[in-house]
Amino acid sequence: MTDVIVSSARRERTRRRLLDAAADVFAEDGLDATSVEAICERAGFTRGAFYSNFASKDELFLELATRVSNDKLSAVTARVRELDPEAVGSLRPAELVGRLLDVEHDSRKDVLLLSEIRTHALRDAALAAGYLAWQDAMITRVAEIVADVGRAGGLTFRLPAEAMARMLLETWETAASRAAMEGLDDEALCRVVSLRMQTLAEVLVG
Amino acid sequence: MTDVIVSSARRERTRRRLLDAAADVFAEDGLDATSVEAICERAGFTRGAFYSNFASKDELFLELATRVSNDKLSAVTARVRELDPEAVGSLRPAELVGRLLDVEHDSRKDVLLLSEIRTHALRDAALAAGYLAWQDAMITRVAEIVADVGRAGGLTFRLPAEAMARMLLETWETAASRAAMEGLDDEALCRVVSLRMQTLAEVLVG
Repeated sequence: MTDVIVSSARRERTRRRLLDAAADVFAEDGLDATSVEAICERAGFTRGAFYSNFASKDELFLELATRVSNDKLSAVTARVRELDPEAVGSLRPAELVGRLLDVEHDSRKDVLLLSEIRTHALRDAALAAGYLAWQDAMITRVAEIVADVGRAGGLTFRLPAEAMARMLLETWETAASRAAMEGLDDEALCRVVSLRMQTLAEVLVG
Repeated sequence: MTDVIVSSARRERTRRRLLDAAADVFAEDGLDATSVEAICERAGFTRGAFYSNFASKDELFLELATRVSNDKLSAVTARVRELDPEAVGSLRPAELVGRLLDVEHDSRKDVLLLSEIRTHALRDAALAAGYLAWQDAMITRVAEIVADVGRAGGLTFRLPAEAMARMLLETWETAASRAAMEGLDDEALCRVVSLRMQTLAEVLVG
C-alpha cells in the first residue's frame, strides 16, 4: 500500500515535471516546433518516461491546457465562496464579474497554448475528442459558478446557466486572443478580458 | 489607358488563380505544410509571379480569409436589403437572424483557415497587424448591418452596434470551430452556427 502511494506520488511528480518543461519549451518555440525530445531534455527524463506518462505530445499539451484552465476556475470558485451575499445583491453585474475575475492571471503564453491546441484538434479527430471533453468539463464548471453566483445574488439570467457559461468562455477566449495579438502585456490583457466579460454580464443579467 | 486596364485585369486574374490554388492546397495539407512552391505549381505560375503579387504565404492566406469573409458579409447584406420592413417588426430577433444567415455557407475548410491564420498571427507581429485590421473591417461592416436591421425593424439593442458586432463575430467563430471539431458536415455546421447566433440575438435585443 505504501509502495503504491510512493509510486503514485513519484508518477505525479514526473508528470508535473514533464508538463512544466513542455510549458517552457512551448512558450519559446510553439507547439509544432516543440519535440518530445526537447521536452524530455528540459525535464531531465528519457523518452521512455515520457511515453509511460503520455500517449503523445498532443495529449501532454491538452493536459497542460486543462491544468491552466482548472487553476483559473479554482481561483474564481474560491472568490465566489468569499462573496458576501448581502454585498452581492447591491452590486451591478459588471462589478460582480470584475471582482470575481480579479484573481485571474491570464497570460499571452496561455492564449498561444489554447490557440495552437485548438488548431491541432481541428485536424486530428482523436485530439478533437479530448479537446471537446475538456471544453465540456469547463462549461459544466462555469455553469455551476454562474448558478452559485445567481443564487447568492438573487439574480435573474436571460439564458440557462449552461448557455451563459458557453458565452462567457467564448468571450474570454476570443478577447484574450485579440489582446495578445495587439501585443498587450499580461496585466493589460487581464484588464481587457475582464472588461469584455463585464459587458457580457450586463447583457446576460436581468 | 487600355494597357493599364488590361494589365490590371490580368493581375487580378493571376491573384485570383493563386488564391484559388492556395485554398485547394491548404484544405488538403494545412497552412504550415502548404509551400509557396506547391501553390505556384497548382496555379501554373512561377515563384516570380507569386512574389510580384504577395509578399509572403501568410499575406496570401490573410487575403484568402478576407475574401471568404467578404463573400459571406455581402450575402448577408443582400438579404438585409431584401427584408420587408413590415415583416421585420413582427419577427422575433431569432427568426430575423435565422433568415439573414440562411444564405451563409460556412464550411469546415473556412474554419480551418481562420483558426490557422489566427494561430500564426499570434506569433508574428506583422501578420497580427494585418489580421487585426481585417477583424476591425469586419466589425465595422457587421455593425453597419446590425444598425440597418435595427432601423428596419425598429429594434432596441442592449449594446452599441459595434459591441454587438464583436459578440456576433466571436460567437460565429467559436461556434463554427466547435461544430467543425465535432465532425459535423457543412450543412449541419451552418445550422448549428445559425442557432447559436439566434440565441445571442434574443439576448441582445430588447
